[in-house]
Amino acid sequence: MHGILLFAHGARDAAWAWPFEAIAAHMRTHHVDGPVALAYLELMQPGLPEAVDALVRQGCQAITVVPMFLGAGGHVRRDLPALMERLRTEHPGLQLRSTCAIGESDAVNRALATAALALATESLAGPSTAP
Amino acid sequence: MHGILLFAHGARDAAWAWPFEAIAAHMRTHHVDGPVALAYLELMQPGLPEAVDALVRQGCQAITVVPMFLGAGGHVRRDLPALMERLRTEHPGLQLRSTCAIGESDAVNRALATAALALATESLAGPSTAP
Repeated sequence: MHGILLFAHGARDAAWAWPFEAIAAHMRTHHVDGPVALAYLELMQPGLPEAVDALVRQGCQAITVVPMFLGAGGHVRRDLPALMERLRTEHPGLQLRSTCAIGESDAVNRALATAALALATESLAGPSTAP
Repeated sequence: MHGILLFAHGARDAAWAWPFEAIAAHMRTHHVDGPVALAYLELMQPGLPEAVDALVRQGCQAITVVPMFLGAGGHVRRDLPALMERLRTEHPGLQLRSTCAIGESDAVNRALATAALALATESLAGPSTAP
């Protein structure tokens, strides 16, 4: 069973996470080979180690971590590899992989460009102080 | 002339910004009514005030700020409105608007879900320690 973990930054405000929950829900309708779950770097639970433990308990032999960061800075280039190295030591039989950051996908950037342009164009029709 | 500012967090690593530069480049091929530029909350230049000043100098009478954040936490809900209020006072003749955060668009979340699923599926074909 192949589990997918969406790895996001985390924030103090619980509402911050809903887009990631919506993304996971979309993915679950297409990914039928295993669970799709969330994990956070900080400020929110579960952290990546707890999320990996949970998927292993559910029976995943393979887990892929997808960094949900538009820009790939220290969190993606340093914090995540350090976490992954520790987790590979703790779970030697697990196929544990991570992908590039979601913002490094050109398809994503084209979709973001289309959405940003639509939002900006729509904004011209609204009142000048909104939102 | 309607300028669009993509407002991103910023990071210490200059390479962090390239997805946002790629998004702006995609947008420029479609948005012909004015400039598309970047602005950062912290750690990178220009900040939002400097970026707004630059677009006003270029002749923009309207500027829309699109927050390039997947989750909308304190940066989008508190920091950005405070900046916008100050900028509206400084530029009383300017139509200055902001939109919802890019991650609050369902189209974006569907595109992110598709991309995350593709990355996770491709990862199973790679070596178990990569990347």
